[in-house]
Order: sequence, then structure tokens, then C-alpha cells
Amino acid sequence: MVLLTAGVTNVGTAKTAVNLLRYKPEEVVAVLDPANAGKTAGELLGVGGSIPVIRELAEAAGANMVTIGIAPAGGKLSPDLRSVVLEGIARRMDVLSGLHTFLSDDSEIATAASEKGVRLIDVRKNTERDVAQRKNVNEKCFRVHTVGHDCNVGKMVVSVELTRALQRAGHEAKFVATGQTGMMIEGDGCPIDAVVVDFINGAAEKLVLQNQDHEIMVVEGQGSIAHPRYSAVTLGLLHGCMPDALILCYEMGRKSVYGMEEVPLPDLGKFKELYELMANVMHPCKVIGIGINGRKFSDEEVRREKERVEKEFGVPAADVLRHGSDTLVKAVLEFKKKIGK
Amino acid sequence: MVLLTAGVTNVGTAKTAVNLLRYKPEEVVAVLDPANAGKTAGELLGVGGSIPVIRELAEAAGANMVTIGIAPAGGKLSPDLRSVVLEGIARRMDVLSGLHTFLSDDSEIATAASEKGVRLIDVRKNTERDVAQRKNVNEKCFRVHTVGHDCNVGKMVVSVELTRALQRAGHEAKFVATGQTGMMIEGDGCPIDAVVVDFINGAAEKLVLQNQDHEIMVVEGQGSIAHPRYSAVTLGLLHGCMPDALILCYEMGRKSVYGMEEVPLPDLGKFKELYELMANVMHPCKVIGIGINGRKFSDEEVRREKERVEKEFGVPAADVLRHGSDTLVKAVLEFKKKIGK
Repeated sequence: MVLLTAGVTNVGTAKTAVNLLRYKPEEVVAVLDPANAGKTAGELLGVGGSIPVIRELAEAAGANMVTIGIAPAGGKLSPDLRSVVLEGIARRMDVLSGLHTFLSDDSEIATAASEKGVRLIDVRKNTERDVAQRKNVNEKCFRVHTVGHDCNVGKMVVSVELTRALQRAGHEAKFVATGQTGMMIEGDGCPIDAVVVDFINGAAEKLVLQNQDHEIMVVEGQGSIAHPRYSAVTLGLLHGCMPDALILCYEMGRKSVYGMEEVPLPDLGKFKELYELMANVMHPCKVIGIGINGRKFSDEEVRREKERVEKEFGVPAADVLRHGSDTLVKAVLEFKKKIGK
Repeated sequence: MVLLTAGVTNVGTAKTAVNLLRYKPEEVVAVLDPANAGKTAGELLGVGGSIPVIRELAEAAGANMVTIGIAPAGGKLSPDLRSVVLEGIARRMDVLSGLHTFLSDDSEIATAASEKGVRLIDVRKNTERDVAQRKNVNEKCFRVHTVGHDCNVGKMVVSVELTRALQRAGHEAKFVATGQTGMMIEGDGCPIDAVVVDFINGAAEKLVLQNQDHEIMVVEGQGSIAHPRYSAVTLGLLHGCMPDALILCYEMGRKSVYGMEEVPLPDLGKFKELYELMANVMHPCKVIGIGINGRKFSDEEVRREKERVEKEFGVPAADVLRHGSDTLVKAVLEFKKKIGK
């Protein structure tokens, strides 16, 4: 595949591209970004190593798919992306999109795809229409859920890393994807933020029912419970997936809501209070670990932050890309044992 | 219009019918319910006085619209309703529906309507695709929001009654409808529970921006913040409409979640805590009054309950259909003055 970033190079908005480069590099031929053509993905986005950044699709002769690699607020298709999508279709490439604006609903794009016989894969398209039932839940499966103080803080990365570390430690764990990027990586899941709101709790519960034969499920979180835009997504998912335990994720140094600089973020202790209170309305649940995203800070600064939050909250903390996930694995297994699961 | 209830006579699920009979009786020709034909609406549903309950549409010769009068969980179209809808179309009647299943998406129904030249009005259909912005909010407008301990407890009734009482007291108040029944009564609003979840906070904010030239807006609540199915709806609306004040509504005697008898309801004090905590994340807000739905109890029992909750919470309480809304009006005006709005 070729990843389209429409010139967006910040790690937040380009998170689909960044995480496909991180977790599916073997499937990525190139990143399309004319302004940065000639660089490598590693230089441009910090991941992806020597995968080239190219100026036009013609340079990626071997690719058979174009993937929209950005997740803008509102999820609309920009004119820039649109023209590259149409060019990709003309070159007989499938198109993979996680936008809210569905490619298959766009008559020009749909007609072009049909003429060229290529697939339009709208990851966020869904037909969820079932309310939650609170029935047939297998309480033997341990459910851990990543939550955060904002969007774009690394909940998906912590979920993937924790799942893989649990698997390496010999446990039968499943990463349960709830967003477009996670779904592209895992190959299944539910685009929870694109569900009609009456059915989001039901869609999250369905993910539990579908995956509860695993020993442990790690459910990817979305947004934040105090997010002016997306709090409903976060609460519907939190209530629907009925977690036993939470990993609270945050980015060091972030002072205001991502994309809304005038809205200050509450402190981490407030988030712990809100998440535990709201989760416990449905099911007993505790924050058992903390995921630090320290990408803007030095090893030493992150080490001091880790010490500080571990002391403040009394649970292990880790920047999983820097420290690995072993302390979080230990926290999961100890708490799982403690509650008899 | 003729109200279809598909044989449902409980006040909760038939709430659209009940509230159209309560607030728009002049537009209702009859209630269609074969099993209860011959009775009056007043006898069958407790409202609507002498409006007849009929066996078949042919008995309502003057009607030009059929209205689906029930709000089942999940909002699907039952086979019973479907056949009456098709019969209504054949009789050249418009169809008004608040279901999640859109009549206009049903090819048989849409084709029939097109052939007969009648309108299909899907109140829940929406194209909301804007995220919240937290900009241009007129802080002069006082925003009061009804919230509840469950679905079907009377949040819409309290909202309508409070708005009308404020208007009678000489204030410029607006009922802001957020559900299908409220929208049928008021003629505007947004079907908030049918919005794609990423955009519910934005849709609620849009209602604020559209109505903030009024002195006071009374925003109809939905669901409950602890509802296993609909908590996301409730929180998105609560955060998006940024209330100054809440009226906490509940039904006396209800012990478990409506339609989920195995799920017990937390006590009212817990709801006050959850609503105030979650509302204050976005905007300063307090519970200033309590709406009691005492329909299953005697005047004397409700009087004692009113005393008890007023003492427990230190704010006025009223069963608005029994006591009127004057004490809630007083609470709104006093709190509005106190916060300088």
C-alpha cells in the first residue's frame, strides 16, 4: 500500500500512517507527500525506517492499494486527498479509508471504482443497530481497557504493545480494535466512533461477546471522558465493554485538549476519579497501570515522570515504546489473579 | 393524525402517542389499536379524553397522517406497524415516524409513498457531521437541562411544563427538543440519539447556538448517565449543551432499569453526584430542582415523597402534572439571578 498523508506530518493527525508504518511496515511501499519527497518515512514521521516518501503515485509501481493515512477531526475528505484517491483508482488500486465521509457514498469515486473493478474499503462504515443487553457475558475473560486524558495520546499503541507482551509471556490475549487504525492493524474490530449513538454501548458489548473466549482481552480506548467533542464515544465504549481494569494513558506536557488549545485539560488525578467512578456504575473496575507518552521528552525526563506518577497513583507506569510493557503485564496478571479471574 | 400503538399500552413504550395526546390533542383523530377498539384514549392511555380508539384506518376518514406512536428499544419497525403504514399510504396518508429504522430507506414503503404522492417523515433521520467547537456561546442565555435516573421517567414532560410555566410567568423561554416526540410537539430540535456518536456533542452544541437568543432554554434530556444502553447519548448531550442548571427527574418506585429488570438502579443521590461531576468537567452546573413522576402513587404518597426528597437534596421537587411547575420556575429564576445571568 501507499500511505496518503496530504502533507500532514504531525504524529497526532497522521496517526493512521504512523501506526501502519509501526505495525505493518511490510505492507507499506511508500508514503505520498510531495512537499517531503526524497526523505524516508523514518526521517519524516519517526517510524518506517527507509520506506521512501514519494511525490506521485507513479513512483510506487508495485503498490495495489492507497490508504488514507490521516484522521482529521470530523473525518472529512479534503480536495487534495480526493484527487489522489481518484488517481489511485485510475491506476487500478484499491482504496482503504478510515474517514467518516464514506468513499462508497461519493458517486464520482464509486463510479470510477466500479469501472476499474477496484475495492473501496470504508473501515468506519457500519450497520450497528443493537442495544446492549448485559447477557451472556463470560466473566472468566479478563477485560482490560485503555483510557486517556485526550485523543492521540497512544491508547492504541499501549493496547497493541500490552497484548503482544502478554502473548510473549505465554498468555492468550487479544487486541480488540475500536478505531480505524487499530482495525487496519488487527484485521477486525468495530469503528466505535462511527456508530449511531443509541447503539454504541451495544456495539462495544458485542465486541466483548465476540472475543470473550480469550483469556484476556485488551480493548482499545477512544477519546476521553472529559473531551468536549468525543466524551460520548468514550463513555459508550467504557460502559459497553465493562472492563475489570483500566490503563490510564496520557501525553507528558500536554496542557490543553488536542486541536482545542483554549480548553485546558484537567489533571491526571481527576481523570482517574472520573473513569473509575463511571466504570464502576456498570462493573467493578480499577486503574491498574499508567501509560506515559513521553515522545517530546528525554529518557531522563521520562524516567523522573515515571517515578513521580508511580508514587502519586501507586500503580506501575511505562512509556511502552521506551520501557517495554513488562511492568504493565505484571500489573494485569497480578490484578487478574487478585479478582479471581 | 391517527396514532399507531401496535397494541402497546404501557406509558413508557407508547410515550410518543401519550405525549401527542397530551400536548397536541387537537391534531389527533384517533388511536389505532384493534384489541382495545371502542374505548377512549383517556381510558386506554390516561390522556386524550374522548378521542376514540379504533380498529382500522377506515374508521378515521378525516385523518391525513398516520403517526407511529411507540418508541421501542432499538427503534425497529415491527411487521404489525409495517402493514398499517402500507395501508395508510394506500389511503393517501402521510406517515410520521420516530423510529431508528427509516421508512424512506425501505424500498417497498418508499415506492408506495412515491406512487401515492404522500410524505414519509423520518424524524430521527439526520446528517449531523460537525464536531463541537466551544466557540460563540452566548453566556447570557440561561441553560437548564432535564436529566434522569432512567429512560421514560418524564424528562420531556418536565421540560415542556417548565418552559410553559416560565412563559406564563413572563419569561422568554424555549423548549429545546432532543427526541422524536419532543420534536413532533415543538416542530424543531434534533434527534440526538440517532446522530453518529463522534458528532453528538457537536449536534447538542448546535442546538445551543441555534437557540441562545432566548432568555432561557430548557434542553430536554435523554436516557441516563448510568444506563447500560444509552449512557453515551446522555453524556454527549450533557457535555454538548453545557447546562448552567439541571432538573433531576425520576419515577417513584422504579427499582431497575426500564426494560432490563435484572439491572438495579443506583439511588438518586448517586445520580446527583454523577451528573454534577460530569457536567462540571465542561461548565459550572448544579442540580437546582427535582422532577418526581408519581403516576403509580396516590396524592398523599407523592406529597410525602416530595417532602422527603426536598429535605434530602435541599432543592424544590415537584410532580409537575400534579403540583404544577411553580416551585421549579422559582428555582430556575433564583439560580439564574444568583449566577448573574
